[in-house]
Order: sequence, then C-alpha cells, then structure tokens
Amino acid sequence: MEKTAIIVAGGSGLRMGKDIPKQFLLLAQKPILMHTIEAFFQYNPFIAIVLVLPKSQIEYWQNLCIKYNFNIPLCIAHGGETRFESVKNGLALATKGSLIAVHDGVRPFVTAETLERCYDTAQQLGNAIPVSDAVESIRQISNQGNHAVNRTEFKMVQTPQVFQWEQISKAYSQPYSELFTDDASVIESMGYQINLVEGNRENIKITTPFDLLIGEALCNH
Amino acid sequence: MEKTAIIVAGGSGLRMGKDIPKQFLLLAQKPILMHTIEAFFQYNPFIAIVLVLPKSQIEYWQNLCIKYNFNIPLCIAHGGETRFESVKNGLALATKGSLIAVHDGVRPFVTAETLERCYDTAQQLGNAIPVSDAVESIRQISNQGNHAVNRTEFKMVQTPQVFQWEQISKAYSQPYSELFTDDASVIESMGYQINLVEGNRENIKITTPFDLLIGEALCNH
Repeated sequence: MEKTAIIVAGGSGLRMGKDIPKQFLLLAQKPILMHTIEAFFQYNPFIAIVLVLPKSQIEYWQNLCIKYNFNIPLCIAHGGETRFESVKNGLALATKGSLIAVHDGVRPFVTAETLERCYDTAQQLGNAIPVSDAVESIRQISNQGNHAVNRTEFKMVQTPQVFQWEQISKAYSQPYSELFTDDASVIESMGYQINLVEGNRENIKITTPFDLLIGEALCNH
Repeated sequence: MEKTAIIVAGGSGLRMGKDIPKQFLLLAQKPILMHTIEAFFQYNPFIAIVLVLPKSQIEYWQNLCIKYNFNIPLCIAHGGETRFESVKNGLALATKGSLIAVHDGVRPFVTAETLERCYDTAQQLGNAIPVSDAVESIRQISNQGNHAVNRTEFKMVQTPQVFQWEQISKAYSQPYSELFTDDASVIESMGYQINLVEGNRENIKITTPFDLLIGEALCNH
C-alpha cells in the first residue's frame, strides 16, 4: 500500500514565550520542522508528504527552505482553525487509498522503527498509534477530589497515528466535536478499535523551552 | 512545625544497563543522590534528613562521601524489600511530630518552590503532593481494548510527598498491600484526601539513560 504522511505544523509557539512559531525554532542549527520531515524521508523517500501550515506562515517557510537548502519534495496544505480542520485540509491533498500517517510537526525524534511499526500494523489491522508507558504515578481528578489509579492501565499517546484511507476519510467527514483530542479519537468515534504499538521514548513533542533543551541534548548525543 | 525528609534510594539501577545503582551514577561529575540531598539542604539547612539505602550499599556510599567531600548531616536507615518497608524504616528514624517529606533519591531537580508548596500545604491541610499536567493524549487499557480519556482529568505525580506525622505514622502501621503505588496511596487508603500542589517540570525521576541525558542537559543549562 502507498504511504502518505500529513505533517501538521499549526503551532503559534506561544508556550515557548517566543515570537517564532515553535515548528520554526532551531534545533541543532535547523528548524525543528525540517528535522521532522527528514525523519520520514530518511525512513522511506517514497512517502508522499503533505505539510499543513497556517496560511500566514507559508512564505516564511519558503524562505527558510531557501536559506537551509531544504528540498525534500512535499505538498503544502493550509492550516485550519482547529487541528481537526488542519488534518482535513491535509487529507484533501493526500493520495487516495494510501496509508495515511498524521504526525505532529514538532516531533522530530520519531525513529524509523516506530514509523515501521505504525505503518505495518495499520496496513494489517486498519490503524495503529504509537504509545509509551507512564513513567510517573497517576491521579485522576473528579468532582469528589482525586484518587490514585493503576498506571499500568494507561498509555501516553505519541504520533504518527496511521490509518487506512477508508477509516480516516470516513472519520474526517464527520462534523467536528470537542471530544476529538487526537486523530485516534476521531477514528474511534466511528466505532473502530485503535491498535497500539510501541513508540520510542525520545519521540517527544517540543512545545516548551524545557522540551527544546531535551531536544538539543538528543541532537548532541 | 519541624521538617524531615526521608530520601529513598533503593534502586539497583538495572534499567540503566549499568552495574552501579542509579542513585550513584554521576550527573555533572557528582552522584545523583548528592544533588538530591543538596536540593533539600539548600532549601532549608534545618530539615532533618533520613537517607534510606540498601544495607549492601552503605559502605559504598560512605566511600563516595569521602571522595566527594560530601558532609551534609543525615541519618542512614536500611532499605527494605519493598518501597513501603523502606519508608517505614526511614520513619523509625524521623522526628516524631514533624512534617515528613518522602522523596525519590533520583529526583535531583526538585526546586525550592516545589518543596515550599509541599511543606506549606501539608502543614495547613495534613498532606500535599506535587503533580504536573499530562503532556500527551492518554489512552486507558481495559479488557475490551483501549479508549481515549480526557487528559485534563489526569495528573502525573512527583515527589516529595509530604505528610503530617499523625497521618503518615498511622498509615505506615498498616500491613503492606500491592495497591500501594506511592506514599500518597498508602495515606489515601486510611481515608485521608490527598492535596495536590504544582510540581516543577524538571523534577524528573532519573531511571533510564534517556533521563540521564536530560539530567545532564539540565545541569549544563
């Protein structure tokens, strides 16, 4: 089955306390987003890449591509008001019938092994998302206060979340709901069971200065 | 109210893939455990520190103290088979009637602000534990498969977990149960409500090479 990757880079970077949207911040002297796209390209150069960017950032991105001599082939879709809308816009440019990965633009450390597990399992079972174990104890907040839960019952969800075309195209033709916290939850709302595969611990989402510090350490390692 | 800190360092370090127990691995050229003890001492040099160490590691620790010229005053208690037993042994050396913090020996990056929030709230309300928000989407595993949950209902638990003497001494006189995943769950099992305060994001537990890499980055920052 052909493979597509929709890379969603809609962030404004406000949590970073900086003016530059977080996906354009430098990691080892290169914008984070370029590292992320390279992770897919290095895993498999035949993956069709759709980059979703806010309309207002496209020219900035194009200038970065010239500056950094970045020329991995890709299509650009416009970001929407919500992540749901952004993914939907990306889907419109995706190869029909292919396996569709939806990935956060600020997760540059996804490994080839994680990508392989996600695409392979989705090809076999319809979908797959990478998860990791909880490293801390967990408490659940309720109206009555809070209580300890069994952390082995909980998994932390990463991306890429990969789906067969039929599942994702059907799921994203629904109206938007606030219950959609990630792509898997959109697909799940159609009644599909979600398949979990192992992610990789370094596959962090870079959204705060602390994350950027970790990212630099990973690059220098 | 007087303050005690029971610092539990019972790890064997197997997850690090190294021979040295993780609490003795070097972070910025000094054993992790020394950084952790210093965090308490620097916050307040009058806190009574009880260090819980496996009996087999005490001599090794004493040699490290000579080597690194480490001389913060503290009592040493013997580690037990379980964390529950280790904390119980630490409690036996703690100042009766004081506020008791139980802290992981491999969390060197707890800030003075987090310590202050924990001790202050425990003094007012009986107990307090530091928590942080979940940064990823969360899925819960069940017999029927897995499903997305609302991540804003979940908090990741750090240490120190601080308790008034009355609560913790009563709770640790219970028989051990496998449901005790941390100190708060032991206290909770006596019917006490647990109070959550804000932790600090860098207050990670160093248990894997990845964590150690983050730790080095934080030290060099």
